[in-house]
Amino acid sequence: MSFLYDRVALIGLGLIAGSMALAMREQGLAREIVGHARSADTRATALEIGLVDQVFETAAEAVEGADLVVLAVPVGAMAAVAEEIAPRLKPGVTVTDVGSVKQAVVTEVLPHLPEGVHFIPGHPLAGTEHSGPRAGFATLFRNRWWLFTPLEGADEQAVSRLESLVQAMGAKTERMDAAHHDLVLAVTSHTPHLIAYTMVGVADHLKRVTESEVVQYSAAGFRDFTRIAASDPTMWRDVFLQNKDAVLDILGRFTEELFVLQRAIRMGDGQHLFDYFTRTRAIRRGIIEAGQDTSAPDFGRSQPGGENAKS
Amino acid sequence: MSFLYDRVALIGLGLIAGSMALAMREQGLAREIVGHARSADTRATALEIGLVDQVFETAAEAVEGADLVVLAVPVGAMAAVAEEIAPRLKPGVTVTDVGSVKQAVVTEVLPHLPEGVHFIPGHPLAGTEHSGPRAGFATLFRNRWWLFTPLEGADEQAVSRLESLVQAMGAKTERMDAAHHDLVLAVTSHTPHLIAYTMVGVADHLKRVTESEVVQYSAAGFRDFTRIAASDPTMWRDVFLQNKDAVLDILGRFTEELFVLQRAIRMGDGQHLFDYFTRTRAIRRGIIEAGQDTSAPDFGRSQPGGENAKS
Ligand SMILES: NC(=O)c1ccc[n+]([C@@H]2O[C@H](COP(=O)([O-])OP(=O)(O)OC[C@H]3O[C@@H](n4cnc5c(N)ncnc54)[C@H](OP(=O)(O)O)[C@@H]3O)[C@@H](O)[C@H]2O)c1
Ligand SMILES: NC(=O)c1ccc[n+]([C@@H]2O[C@H](COP(=O)([O-])OP(=O)(O)OC[C@H]3O[C@@H](n4cnc5c(N)ncnc54)[C@H](OP(=O)(O)O)[C@@H]3O)[C@@H](O)[C@H]2O)c1
Repeated sequence: MSFLYDRVALIGLGLIAGSMALAMREQGLAREIVGHARSADTRATALEIGLVDQVFETAAEAVEGADLVVLAVPVGAMAAVAEEIAPRLKPGVTVTDVGSVKQAVVTEVLPHLPEGVHFIPGHPLAGTEHSGPRAGFATLFRNRWWLFTPLEGADEQAVSRLESLVQAMGAKTERMDAAHHDLVLAVTSHTPHLIAYTMVGVADHLKRVTESEVVQYSAAGFRDFTRIAASDPTMWRDVFLQNKDAVLDILGRFTEELFVLQRAIRMGDGQHLFDYFTRTRAIRRGIIEAGQDTSAPDFGRSQPGGENAKS
Repeated sequence: MSFLYDRVALIGLGLIAGSMALAMREQGLAREIVGHARSADTRATALEIGLVDQVFETAAEAVEGADLVVLAVPVGAMAAVAEEIAPRLKPGVTVTDVGSVKQAVVTEVLPHLPEGVHFIPGHPLAGTEHSGPRAGFATLFRNRWWLFTPLEGADEQAVSRLESLVQAMGAKTERMDAAHHDLVLAVTSHTPHLIAYTMVGVADHLKRVTESEVVQYSAAGFRDFTRIAASDPTMWRDVFLQNKDAVLDILGRFTEELFVLQRAIRMGDGQHLFDYFTRTRAIRRGIIEAGQDTSAPDFGRSQPGGENAKS
């Protein structure tokens, strides 16, 4: 058996790290997997259910001797972890993270890391609304994107090895610039999530409509969204705080555009609505014709394993 | 074989009427199905693919002798159709509609109908982003809600018979007040659809992010939404114009709420975000505990047949 990495250290042992551990074991990708989480409870659970071979009380101890370190804590906790582990990192080690925001992570993690460490920021577009060490499953990343935002001058061999690892877990990889990543995710995930939270909040205030009516009668896309509004509050707080500029940019455009439609409804301007909806239809069809999606309804079914809370 | 209705007349021969025709045939629910659509093309297609036994050039001719008439045209076209068919309706006939808005339909259709006609407004919560006579399929309504908003003093036998019909097509039925229906749908479907259209529009203006990136990297719920933005522009124009008050009410609450969150992001008020997300999580969990939904991720899979564009 040839392992891609000898010793992998997972910092944070929740949904993402747990799923990585299970996938790595299933595919035999690492000789040894060790880990650290904040609480003794999580550490005990991770050991008990066999996510890792060994747990450590501190992140610093966990990374010793590792040739791959994965930061899988909320985005707001990355800087402190990086500072703590820096002195114990082995020369030539690859450090990656799985945070949902990339620019802020780079800004906060990079300054702490010593020379000779390959820092390769990453983000798997996969998740569920569940969290913690018991939430993981080996197939989470299957057929999902895993975006990497390597820094300028990154070591090609180190990047390729890491890509091979996640591909072996079933993921599709793509490289892009961190700023571009943050803008794309602000459009495709962060802003839609904020909107989902907001719609659930609105429904909650509407005393005339019960919550169960909202869930029962919701259109599919929106129903998934109410589900997402059950995601981990810490993770999402950090996402919005750390991708503030891109989210505010998109939100500004969004409300501007929404107000124009709202005005058309108020004025009874059917032509405006018709033209707008005709244009969005053309956009959607353009994508289908370009082969980027199919026109067959699949409602997310083609990609098993819980995609709705990805961030 | 005992039929629930002898002769059913479908006015409009698109996705919804076509699916009803196929489901009624599959289950042997009507002795004869006839229909009318605006264009000769659609009428020819409906006949050719066997949706109906007979087509008529006018709606007035189509309803003659029918004991069930289904209005399955865009909401904005209901009034004219009702006016046209009124003189030719058989006494004791049941007239229903499948429009996505109920109050406006009642206001516009009812005044035209003669005494002795049972008018029972309805709305199947099922649909896809496709339209036209070839878009229908027999299982569209399976396991989906079909809401009825009977008028005060409605004939119980007529209502029950109609409910039996749609239940035999696989639907679950519920009765409610038309105003309540419009509010519930404004929250669960109409406003979310407007938001979906808006997000696709925003993405289109962002020249730095390609459309294919938006589709590829979209979270599941939102991906369904971009799909929905390909729905029929006429239908949706009519929905927003005809459910104007409820949609504007919900939109107003929505933007108000969104602005509070936006401000918290701008100010870096993590506590506010955390508290808000914790509350929406509690709401969602409350629903699960009340048995109204399951916590198992299903991404719409449990309800085959295309639910995402329901209105
Ligand atoms: N969930 C998703 O949908 C998703 C998708 C893609 C990327 N991500 C990203 O993946 C990362 C982890 O998310 P997750 O869903 O795996 O979260 P999770 O299930 O909540 O797990 C987070 C883990 O981090 C630990 N942790 C939290 N704060 C810490 C700190 N200050 N120091 C050390 N450990 C700490 C937690 O330990 P305790 O259990 O002891 O508290 C827990 O083991 C986040 O950056 C998130 O943005 C998430
Ligand atoms: N699609 C959904 O997701 C959905 C879900 C629930 C309820 N609904 C409601 O169902 C109704 C029909 O929707 P659909 O999806 O079946 O639409 P569709 O596939 O576009 O079919 C509409 C049908 O109505 C006919 N029509 C349009 N304007 C007409 C007019 N002025 N006079 C006579 N016939 C006319 C069309 O004829 P031509 O083909 O000749 O133009 C076509 O046969 C709408 O009220 C909609 O709100 C739709």
